[in-house]
Amino acid sequence: MRPPGKIMLVGIGPGSAAHMTQRAREAIAQADTIIGYVTYIKLVADLIEGKEVIRKSMTEELDRAIEALDRARQGKKVALISSGDAGVYGMAGPTFEVLFQAGWTPPADGEEGIEVEIVPGASALNSCAALVGAPLTHDFCAISLSDLLTPWPAIARRLDAAALSDFVVALYNPKSGRRTRQIVEAQRIFLHHRRPDTPVAIVKSAYRRRQHVELTTLDTMTETDIGMLSTVLIGNSNTIVRHGLMVTPRGYLNKYDMSEGGTTCEGEQPGRSLSTGLHGWLKTLQAEHADGDSIATLAARHRLPADYIEATLAEPLEAVSANDAGADEA
Amino acid sequence: MRPPGKIMLVGIGPGSAAHMTQRAREAIAQADTIIGYVTYIKLVADLIEGKEVIRKSMTEELDRAIEALDRARQGKKVALISSGDAGVYGMAGPTFEVLFQAGWTPPADGEEGIEVEIVPGASALNSCAALVGAPLTHDFCAISLSDLLTPWPAIARRLDAAALSDFVVALYNPKSGRRTRQIVEAQRIFLHHRRPDTPVAIVKSAYRRRQHVELTTLDTMTETDIGMLSTVLIGNSNTIVRHGLMVTPRGYLNKYDMSEGGTTCEGEQPGRSLSTGLHGWLKTLQAEHADGDSIATLAARHRLPADYIEATLAEPLEAVSANDAGADEA
Repeated sequence: MRPPGKIMLVGIGPGSAAHMTQRAREAIAQADTIIGYVTYIKLVADLIEGKEVIRKSMTEELDRAIEALDRARQGKKVALISSGDAGVYGMAGPTFEVLFQAGWTPPADGEEGIEVEIVPGASALNSCAALVGAPLTHDFCAISLSDLLTPWPAIARRLDAAALSDFVVALYNPKSGRRTRQIVEAQRIFLHHRRPDTPVAIVKSAYRRRQHVELTTLDTMTETDIGMLSTVLIGNSNTIVRHGLMVTPRGYLNKYDMSEGGTTCEGEQPGRSLSTGLHGWLKTLQAEHADGDSIATLAARHRLPADYIEATLAEPLEAVSANDAGADEA
Repeated sequence: MRPPGKIMLVGIGPGSAAHMTQRAREAIAQADTIIGYVTYIKLVADLIEGKEVIRKSMTEELDRAIEALDRARQGKKVALISSGDAGVYGMAGPTFEVLFQAGWTPPADGEEGIEVEIVPGASALNSCAALVGAPLTHDFCAISLSDLLTPWPAIARRLDAAALSDFVVALYNPKSGRRTRQIVEAQRIFLHHRRPDTPVAIVKSAYRRRQHVELTTLDTMTETDIGMLSTVLIGNSNTIVRHGLMVTPRGYLNKYDMSEGGTTCEGEQPGRSLSTGLHGWLKTLQAEHADGDSIATLAARHRLPADYIEATLAEPLEAVSANDAGADEA
C-alpha cells in the first residue's frame, strides 16, 4: 500500500530567503510537489529544482487546494506556498474548506491518512511594520479591502469600528486594477473619526526587489501609488513620525520618568496595572455611581455601552482583589 | 575612531529554532551583546555562547532599551530579543521611545551613527493559529488585556468594537497572577455581541516544550487554564470547529459551487467583486434612496453610520466604473 501523502501549508514570509523560517525551507525541500501563485513560486525558485511545480494564477485558490488534495491522495508530499503567513488571507483557509467538503479527516496518532501541517511565517503586516519603524506596538487590526468574497457593508462596518476605537490598522488588498474606489471609501470612513494628519505608511513589495516605502497622512494617502502588492498601515491617535520612522508609543514614557532615572510617575507603581487600569477604573466607576451618576451618564462619560457599565457595576469589587497578589508582568 | 554600533530588534518567532528566520539567527550570531527577557534568552541559548548576555526581568523593557543604547554607543552590535515579532507588543516600541528621548537620529547613507534594524518574525497570533487550524483567514484584531500601560476603558472600547463588527480576535496578555478579572470582562463584552458557542482556542507555549492547545467556546473560556504564556483566539460568526480544527471560512464555498466543478454561483463572476461588493452595494443603495428610503432608514438597514451613507451617496457612481476595466486578483 502506498504511504499516505501530506499537505504542507507554507508561509514563506515577505519573499526574501533571509526572512523565511528554517521549517519553511525544509518543508519545501521535503515536498514532491510545489503549488502556488506564479509570483510566489518565483520567490522560492532556488529551492524547487527537480520537483513537480504547479503554477496557478491569483484567482485560482480553490484549484490550488484541489490539486494539493489530489496529489496527496496519490501519496505525495505537497507544499502549498503562500507569501507571508499561510493562515492570514493565505491558503490555509481555502484548503480546509476544500478538505472538509471532500470528507477529509485528520489521521489519529498512528493511523494512516493525509496529514496537514501549517508552517507559520511573518505576515505582510509584520514585514511592512519592520521597514517603517514600530507602528504596530499597540492593538491593531488587519482588514482586507477585497470584496471578491466579502460584502462591502461587512468591510465598511469593520473599518468604521477600527477607526472609531483607535486601532492601528493594516489594510490588505487595498487596491487593484478593477478595485479603485474601496481605498477611497476606507479613507472617507477613517476621516470621520481620525485626524487628517494621522500617519500612514504605504509599503510595496517589502523585502523584495522593487521594495518601496512611502510615509504619508490619512488625508493624502489616496494620492500615493497604491497597488496589488501594497499594504497600507494607518496609525492610531498616538502614532508619530520622526526622522522618517513611524512609531506608535505604548505609553512607557507616560508611566516612567526617564529624566528621573526611570522612576514611575506619581500614583503609578512599576510592574503594576495603571491607576486607570481595570481595578482603579472600577473603583472610580463605583464611586461615581454611589455619588448619584446614572448608568447613562457613566456610559456617555466613559464612551462604553450602558449595558456593559451596568453589568460590571453589578459585580462585587472583591472579584478583583486578586490584583494585589501573585506574580506579574511588564 | 571606534566604528558606530548597531541595535538589532530581533523577533525570534514562537521560540523553536525551526520557526526562526535565517536573518534572526544571523543577527544573533553577528551581535556582541544579547539583551532580553530571561525566558527568551533561554530559547536561543545555543546561539549566544561567548557573547555578553544581559538578562532582564519582564518589567524591565525600558532598562533593556537603555542598555542597548549604551552598548551601541560603545560601538557594539546589540541584539534585543523579542519572542514572536519585535514590532508586535515587542521591544521595537520601547526602544524607539528611548532612542528618540535620547536624541538619536538614524544615520544618513554613508554617515556614521547608530543603525537600527528590525528583524520581523511570526507573532504569537500566527504561530497559535497554525496550531489550531485556520482561524485568522479573515479580518482580525490583536488586543492586549494588559492594563499596565493602557487605561481599561480604551481596552474595553476596542473589545466592544471588535466583538460588534465580527473580527476574529487574538487576545495577548490575557491573564497573569495579578490580572485575573480582565479576561472575565473581555468575555462579558463579547457575550453581548456574539453567540455563547463561538469557538475559542487557548494556546499556551506554542512550539515550545510545554505546548498546550485547548478548544473551547466563548461562554466557557474562563473556566480553562489561561496564563501569561497563553494567547486566546476568538472566532467570528462564521468560524467553525470540525475534527478538532478551528477554521474561519473566507466564503469561497458561498461563491463557487464545488459540486459543479468550481463554477460560480448565480449572479457572481469568478475573480470579480461580489454582487454585494462595493460597486453592487452602491447601486443597491442608490436605488433604495431613489425609491424614497431616507438616509436614516438606509443607515439602520445596512448597519452603518448615517454620515457615511450620506457621504457615499453624494459621490457619483461613475467614480467606480473603473471596476469594469483592468487586471484583478482572487
